[in-house]
Amino acid sequence: MKQKIRMGMVGGGAGAFIGEVHRRAARLCGDIELVAGVFGTNYEKSKEVAEGLFVPQSRVYPTYEDMVKGELALPENKRIDFVSVVTPNKMHFPVSNAFLKAGFNVLCEKPMTYTTKEATELKKTLKESGKLFALMHNYSGYPMIKQAKRLVADGVLGKLCKINVEYSLGWLASPNAGKQAVWRVDPKIAGISGCMGDIGTHAEQLINYVTGLKITEISCDLATFVEGRQLDDDGTVLLRFNNGARGVIFASEVSTGEENNFILKIYGTKAALEWHQQSPEDLIVRSNDAPMQVYRRGWAGTCDEAKAVINLPAGHPEGFLEAFASIYRAFADDIYALKAGKKPAGNYPGIQDGIDEMKFLAALVENSNGDKKWTKLK
Amino acid sequence: MKQKIRMGMVGGGAGAFIGEVHRRAARLCGDIELVAGVFGTNYEKSKEVAEGLFVPQSRVYPTYEDMVKGELALPENKRIDFVSVVTPNKMHFPVSNAFLKAGFNVLCEKPMTYTTKEATELKKTLKESGKLFALMHNYSGYPMIKQAKRLVADGVLGKLCKINVEYSLGWLASPNAGKQAVWRVDPKIAGISGCMGDIGTHAEQLINYVTGLKITEISCDLATFVEGRQLDDDGTVLLRFNNGARGVIFASEVSTGEENNFILKIYGTKAALEWHQQSPEDLIVRSNDAPMQVYRRGWAGTCDEAKAVINLPAGHPEGFLEAFASIYRAFADDIYALKAGKKPAGNYPGIQDGIDEMKFLAALVENSNGDKKWTKLK
Amino acid sequence: MKQKIRMGMVGGGAGAFIGEVHRRAARLCGDIELVAGVFGTNYEKSKEVAEGLFVPQSRVYPTYEDMVKGELALPENKRIDFVSVVTPNKMHFPVSNAFLKAGFNVLCEKPMTYTTKEATELKKTLKESGKLFALMHNYSGYPMIKQAKRLVADGVLGKLCKINVEYSLGWLASPNAGKQAVWRVDPKIAGISGCMGDIGTHAEQLINYVTGLKITEISCDLATFVEGRQLDDDGTVLLRFNNGARGVIFASEVSTGEENNFILKIYGTKAALEWHQQSPEDLIVRSNDAPMQVYRRGWAGTCDEAKAVINLPAGHPEGFLEAFASIYRAFADDIYALKAGKKPAGNYPGIQDGIDEMKFLAALVENSNGDKKWTKLK
Amino acid sequence: MKQKIRMGMVGGGAGAFIGEVHRRAARLCGDIELVAGVFGTNYEKSKEVAEGLFVPQSRVYPTYEDMVKGELALPENKRIDFVSVVTPNKMHFPVSNAFLKAGFNVLCEKPMTYTTKEATELKKTLKESGKLFALMHNYSGYPMIKQAKRLVADGVLGKLCKINVEYSLGWLASPNAGKQAVWRVDPKIAGISGCMGDIGTHAEQLINYVTGLKITEISCDLATFVEGRQLDDDGTVLLRFNNGARGVIFASEVSTGEENNFILKIYGTKAALEWHQQSPEDLIVRSNDAPMQVYRRGWAGTCDEAKAVINLPAGHPEGFLEAFASIYRAFADDIYALKAGKKPAGNYPGIQDGIDEMKFLAALVENSNGDKKWTKLK
Repeated sequence: MKQKIRMGMVGGGAGAFIGEVHRRAARLCGDIELVAGVFGTNYEKSKEVAEGLFVPQSRVYPTYEDMVKGELALPENKRIDFVSVVTPNKMHFPVSNAFLKAGFNVLCEKPMTYTTKEATELKKTLKESGKLFALMHNYSGYPMIKQAKRLVADGVLGKLCKINVEYSLGWLASPNAGKQAVWRVDPKIAGISGCMGDIGTHAEQLINYVTGLKITEISCDLATFVEGRQLDDDGTVLLRFNNGARGVIFASEVSTGEENNFILKIYGTKAALEWHQQSPEDLIVRSNDAPMQVYRRGWAGTCDEAKAVINLPAGHPEGFLEAFASIYRAFADDIYALKAGKKPAGNYPGIQDGIDEMKFLAALVENSNGDKKWTKLK
Repeated sequence: MKQKIRMGMVGGGAGAFIGEVHRRAARLCGDIELVAGVFGTNYEKSKEVAEGLFVPQSRVYPTYEDMVKGELALPENKRIDFVSVVTPNKMHFPVSNAFLKAGFNVLCEKPMTYTTKEATELKKTLKESGKLFALMHNYSGYPMIKQAKRLVADGVLGKLCKINVEYSLGWLASPNAGKQAVWRVDPKIAGISGCMGDIGTHAEQLINYVTGLKITEISCDLATFVEGRQLDDDGTVLLRFNNGARGVIFASEVSTGEENNFILKIYGTKAALEWHQQSPEDLIVRSNDAPMQVYRRGWAGTCDEAKAVINLPAGHPEGFLEAFASIYRAFADDIYALKAGKKPAGNYPGIQDGIDEMKFLAALVENSNGDKKWTKLK
Repeated sequence: MKQKIRMGMVGGGAGAFIGEVHRRAARLCGDIELVAGVFGTNYEKSKEVAEGLFVPQSRVYPTYEDMVKGELALPENKRIDFVSVVTPNKMHFPVSNAFLKAGFNVLCEKPMTYTTKEATELKKTLKESGKLFALMHNYSGYPMIKQAKRLVADGVLGKLCKINVEYSLGWLASPNAGKQAVWRVDPKIAGISGCMGDIGTHAEQLINYVTGLKITEISCDLATFVEGRQLDDDGTVLLRFNNGARGVIFASEVSTGEENNFILKIYGTKAALEWHQQSPEDLIVRSNDAPMQVYRRGWAGTCDEAKAVINLPAGHPEGFLEAFASIYRAFADDIYALKAGKKPAGNYPGIQDGIDEMKFLAALVENSNGDKKWTKLK
Repeated sequence: MKQKIRMGMVGGGAGAFIGEVHRRAARLCGDIELVAGVFGTNYEKSKEVAEGLFVPQSRVYPTYEDMVKGELALPENKRIDFVSVVTPNKMHFPVSNAFLKAGFNVLCEKPMTYTTKEATELKKTLKESGKLFALMHNYSGYPMIKQAKRLVADGVLGKLCKINVEYSLGWLASPNAGKQAVWRVDPKIAGISGCMGDIGTHAEQLINYVTGLKITEISCDLATFVEGRQLDDDGTVLLRFNNGARGVIFASEVSTGEENNFILKIYGTKAALEWHQQSPEDLIVRSNDAPMQVYRRGWAGTCDEAKAVINLPAGHPEGFLEAFASIYRAFADDIYALKAGKKPAGNYPGIQDGIDEMKFLAALVENSNGDKKWTKLK
């Protein structure tokens, strides 16, 4: 009989946002069971969280190092199949690296690491481990994003020329935006960038996912609007791509009144795409030669890659959670494949996305601090 | 330590739509475990379905009667806490009735029964059982519907005058609309009405849920557009309410090109509401005295009742599944309450919604077949 | 050298709404000149209005009878080519009838007459006159309505099944809605119906214009929500059409918060159309077999009939005025044709639309007052 | 008795786009009469155009210099009150300058001149002339733009932080985009910039109009996507403002499928505004503290400045033409004022807008050609 996938978690304690999203996404899959974890740095609180999650107290560990040891000590058919790393950025690398080295599959939140150097090192570890690694860029899990990728791949847009991405939130417009906000604007935990690390990386990754294009050079203006903040909370980036296309990302966490307004517009010589994360069921296609089309998730015209991540018929709105869960689904399928000695499909963001995003951030910070117009991504 | 709620299911075999939605909604709660069931009328196929769902083969039963017996034979801390009835309409009553009589809590799909008489009988059984009964009208689980209900209750709209509801789908426009369609247009399984039983009841229930108004009389024109079909696949209903308000429901399953287009517009003397199920995160409020307002799920202005069913921050789209799951959440909370000897809160549609919807259907069919303009709901 | 068309006006004094719209629409044509009129019942005020409009005082008349006489007394190359009748409903017939009898072309506001009998009489007068008559149903002047008509005519929708029309305004929700409102709710001036006469007729006419279908019978619920009002200010009408299609019009002038929310949805066996007067540049086409399409005024896919009434490129919004003016344009072109001895094209609503709308109103009032379900249009 | 304003025109011959818009806008005012002109460089064709416009052949001139002379030779109560200059860019300065020098009021299309130097010279001429000068930046004529300006001025947004403007068209995506396109991409006629001169200037002007902020420095990436084209057809500009705010303009005429997609988003510390030219009746206001608001043209909440340029009630869509006409209205009012010896109000874009836009273009071209990140506007 088929066995459930056993999942562990590092991070996601009381008050955390993204950890609970990971757990709900995993639950939705139906065959992933959370069985172990370190739910925050305070061991007592972590055990309380575990109780609410039906995780046995014996599998709650004081530290991630203890968890690695403890799980390794269990028989193979009991120990976790993978760990979800949902800590603040600073800890992504040490935790992911330790679990990979110990032979566990890892699914990690973005941005992948705290420094570019760590990203390179993690790639090395991964290669040596022979294990699986997923980077949680959840937006690439949306069906209409799969549809967009398919339309681009099919040449519907022609040669790509211009890519305009907006990602605006208002939640950090005030200096006191709650617990979630504190570490995100602290360079000792978040890394070299605030806003760009948090959401600019989503923009960069999604462009690459949908188009296959790589950014070759950037010019930018990073800003910090809230006084006393040490990292950027806003920025605009001019983009040049490896095929000659150009573009812009403007991202902000101080755009008063905006919720999670992530918009992708891609223009080619033949047609163009528009997608709004806040209305994720629509994919708009425009051209100069035909009436506007709106692909709707699950309706006529939906491609196979999109269908594969759809659970409800058209008109029964799916959202953020299902997109998130589709990454878990694909990762869990690869774990089954690996166990069965089959080749994993790798249908989720991974190590290269992480390396790219760290190089992107490094280029942004270098450019924004200097007088030189263009900075190449190394 | 807290125990998971044990769930059973009758219906939801291979090819079923709504059964899987129920299971996903239950999963999302995190503390509901599917442990037993009858997944269709074919026992062998049912066992296969069970395997995919990690339900032990020992808890898969040939018939619902067997399931009642089998579960009763188990020790109390093993047997199911409730059963989800997700069969075609015809079986809603016998299954629900049997489980209630045997002392199990029941969550049942709409419409509640096959006949009005059964509805009354079920009410009696429920009363005698002392158990819990929920009727799955999932749309009342949406946060912005809770918000609408709150605004009406707070008098923001003034006295209610006019209620216009549209519910259009196109999936039955063709005579052959797949397995899901077959029983829905068969009077021997679906009941006295097709379209109105399937979606008109959602409209009727949602109006009542949001406004508290009861329909007192109706006039209608039910239609069957696809040749050979024995039940209505389309209809329009004029409504009169107990406070003097009027309204209209126009529902159709042959509205080519429509997905699940359920729109609610409520007008009062002071203000009006508009909500679209396909864009469920918005609640539009209009008046003659102020600019239009759009309440967004989870953003400023969200009321407590809505917040209570929200899991993601504003701008991270929630949808159909979360609304569905919120009914499961409320029902599971009441099961915990009942076990703990506390008073259940009853925050979900129940027996009265079922009785109302059956009377509504009876009145529609009577009116549509006659020459009299108005038919009172008895 | 080409001569401008000379226009007269009866009605449209100070405080009037629609008269000024007629004048602006006429102006936009560029070849229509307002040269005479009776701008209200008060002669002194009428002369003041005329001065602001550059109409010579010698051509301002105390009454419409004086105007008929006065204009007839002028040499043919001076006298008006047509008169616009923009008075309250009660006067539509006597004024239009008098001018037609005197040999003038007439463009009249809707509803065409005060009674059904007058409508029939006007038809007779028109026939005898050999002159031109236009009825101002401005919504049929929108380019995307022309596009809708074309798509229906081309069979894109297949056989038409269902037509749902909403027309909601909130301006009469309060008992005191200003000067415009007074006569509209006074049966001595407006006629047998308030809301249905004012806007229900637009709905009825637009359905007929786009689809070519005729309403054969109706059932309705007319309501008066504002106390003391003598005419309906709200109503819902079930429709049956000559091809077997069904439909509904729900119209209201007490829908708090609504501006001029006129929505047309037409469903056929193959595809469906949706158009919103408040976003008139879009025409949505849906089917079960293809992604949604949005035709945009002036963009690719625009048909010739729509192009013929377009003045600005796509994306440069046109609106109510241009639609209105397109009726004036077509009427003026026919006046030129008539002068040149050519056959008029008749590309605008006319006498038959007026007769239909008066029969529609009569059936509504009869049905709403009785117990019989269906009333045939005679 | 009040006299009509006499208007002349230079440009706007057969096949021209914007000349006809000017004429229709003027007509709409009701008190402006086109009486003279040079409708293109071909005198014969110009006379034909004039005939269609009811302009007497005696007032059609072979050249603008002839027109200046000819009109000056007429008695003051016959000669034109102002001239509209609607030629390609290259001729804006010589024509405007000549008419101003001769004592005529001038309304000129944007961009104001061909070079920055001409802009400065025109300012000098204007000052010496004592006449009126309007620059046709029509988008500032929209009512909801007036509303936006008012909300900013009232401090509703708090301190302005970020301004994001998109202006995308697809019409030049193909190398052969018709007659309109030819001169717009020819540096000998259009000036130093193509796309930025044509639409980037609208963006720059509208930002300044609504916010009162001035751009202090820019960094940009101008692009030419269509091979062989000598001017930019696309570009993105990073903006820094005199109050510390930042922003971005991305404008393109090769964005396949886009019509005239001009979007303005302004973020302040307290609230934010969003306006789409293609849906000009809505002004969206967002904040972190209240539900989203949508101001609708003419509905509750409309400010006096917006009301002053409104002609139709809310829900009766106004568009591009009315916005355009509102500039003509304000200019005509000032001509009456000037004639009456009163102080002109200057409620329209003028000489300073023109100087600003020319400096903006100069900075863009300098920056785009260099390696320096930021270029100051001089």
